[in-house]
Amino acid sequence: MLHKLTILGPGLLGGSIGMAARQRKVAKHVTVWARRPEAADEAYKLGAADETTGDLKHAVSDADFVVLATPIGVMRPLVEQIKLSLAHNCVVTDVGSVKYSVVAHLSEALEGKARFVGSHPMAGSEQSGIEAARRDLFDGAVCIVTPREDTDKAALQLVHDFWKALGCSVRTLSPQAHDEIVARTSHLPHVVAAAMVNVVCSDGAHPLNFVGPGFKDFTRIASGPPDMWTEICVENRHEIVRALEHLIEELGKLRATLENADAIELRAMLKRAKHFRDELRFRT
Amino acid sequence: MLHKLTILGPGLLGGSIGMAARQRKVAKHVTVWARRPEAADEAYKLGAADETTGDLKHAVSDADFVVLATPIGVMRPLVEQIKLSLAHNCVVTDVGSVKYSVVAHLSEALEGKARFVGSHPMAGSEQSGIEAARRDLFDGAVCIVTPREDTDKAALQLVHDFWKALGCSVRTLSPQAHDEIVARTSHLPHVVAAAMVNVVCSDGAHPLNFVGPGFKDFTRIASGPPDMWTEICVENRHEIVRALEHLIEELGKLRATLENADAIELRAMLKRAKHFRDELRFRT
Repeated sequence: MLHKLTILGPGLLGGSIGMAARQRKVAKHVTVWARRPEAADEAYKLGAADETTGDLKHAVSDADFVVLATPIGVMRPLVEQIKLSLAHNCVVTDVGSVKYSVVAHLSEALEGKARFVGSHPMAGSEQSGIEAARRDLFDGAVCIVTPREDTDKAALQLVHDFWKALGCSVRTLSPQAHDEIVARTSHLPHVVAAAMVNVVCSDGAHPLNFVGPGFKDFTRIASGPPDMWTEICVENRHEIVRALEHLIEELGKLRATLENADAIELRAMLKRAKHFRDELRFRT
Repeated sequence: MLHKLTILGPGLLGGSIGMAARQRKVAKHVTVWARRPEAADEAYKLGAADETTGDLKHAVSDADFVVLATPIGVMRPLVEQIKLSLAHNCVVTDVGSVKYSVVAHLSEALEGKARFVGSHPMAGSEQSGIEAARRDLFDGAVCIVTPREDTDKAALQLVHDFWKALGCSVRTLSPQAHDEIVARTSHLPHVVAAAMVNVVCSDGAHPLNFVGPGFKDFTRIASGPPDMWTEICVENRHEIVRALEHLIEELGKLRATLENADAIELRAMLKRAKHFRDELRFRT
């Protein structure tokens, strides 16, 4: 059990971490820091914190575990502000959706000050903000932890155990491998869902009167927060472009298959996809 | 209330129609015809029929309402076999996902024999078969009815009321407009989800260990039955290719946006999509 868990940023993830940590008794004391007093009040009301504060140094002092749960771009300046106030043995992690650049910057900034291990809990939704936080958000969710070769082994174990205690299924990848894989499994689907909605609605919202459950699920992620996803996609753009080129090539083949009314090739392509997609049932 | 409702083909849709019609007392008597005796038995066990039969002529004789709930390719030969056994005043509809060609063929085949009106209940799932049938499948689902200029007005009203009585939200489109719109809202998303799964898993299923809820929802439709979707996509290929070309163009722009790290354009594109997608909440 942790002594003092500090969460910086009570959004969907930060708020849900606080709620789950308190319910599951992962820490004796949970402190939430928020820039906006209204967000701090809301986090307290929802049971995400024993204490909330707008004072960064107070928030992290004596903490043995700190979670950076702000947008990626805010993490670096925040770490500069807290690094001299961290307890020597403190373990710091983050929840950013891009890892290579984030882990590189935060590891360097915290060197000699605290032990950093990157994390990516894949438990968001199209909603955002503390209002959408849920104490069961991590139940059965995948969390990827992303150690480097120089990552402290004890800190890695602690971060692993932390996410597991919140209900996650924990996996490990290098920061580089993480960014390659989530470009394909998360970032590319996000922008393609958005592109699809824009194509469907290119002549106005009228076609939305005629959609079924398939379209709703397929496009749900397109309702995610645009600012957050812009930041993620620009940060990981090189990997996303590689995956996008692969998809565009695949769609070009599909176009030829359809133009040729090639039922054999189309069925083979749909069967291959179903085979893979059906496997997902066994991976939670 | 109908006197005798006959459903040809007890799959996911046919079975669910029978279950909902009996529960909601839409017809005094529900007959289900199935080619395979096992499917007929299962339909009876699930409460989808008062009577099941493998005899087509017996199934439709005296029926005042017949629903064709088989794969599209089977509808035409079936109608040839039943058309001389239909009661003169019988109304026939279908559940096919493509309408222009289906409505043209079935209207012609039934001319002078019965009144035909095309329907497309958008209530499938990635599952198929009578085992997946549910009596609440149509609750709040959109059903598109597709009259032509020569469609009998009283029959159109009856078909409209039938789907409404099963729980659907009923909309009307011409067969041609239907095929254009569902190419964009249903058929294109289906093949793109399949292409995405194949791209993600191009080096094996390993990346599936690292997916979150967004990928699961985005790709759910890729688990749909390949034979059925091959038939639908080949039948409506001209409209799907037009929509696919539009998407490929949009993805080409997206690639340039990412390569240029153009956060302003990317945010605008994601905001446009979110604006449209959020509207869906008000359209059920």
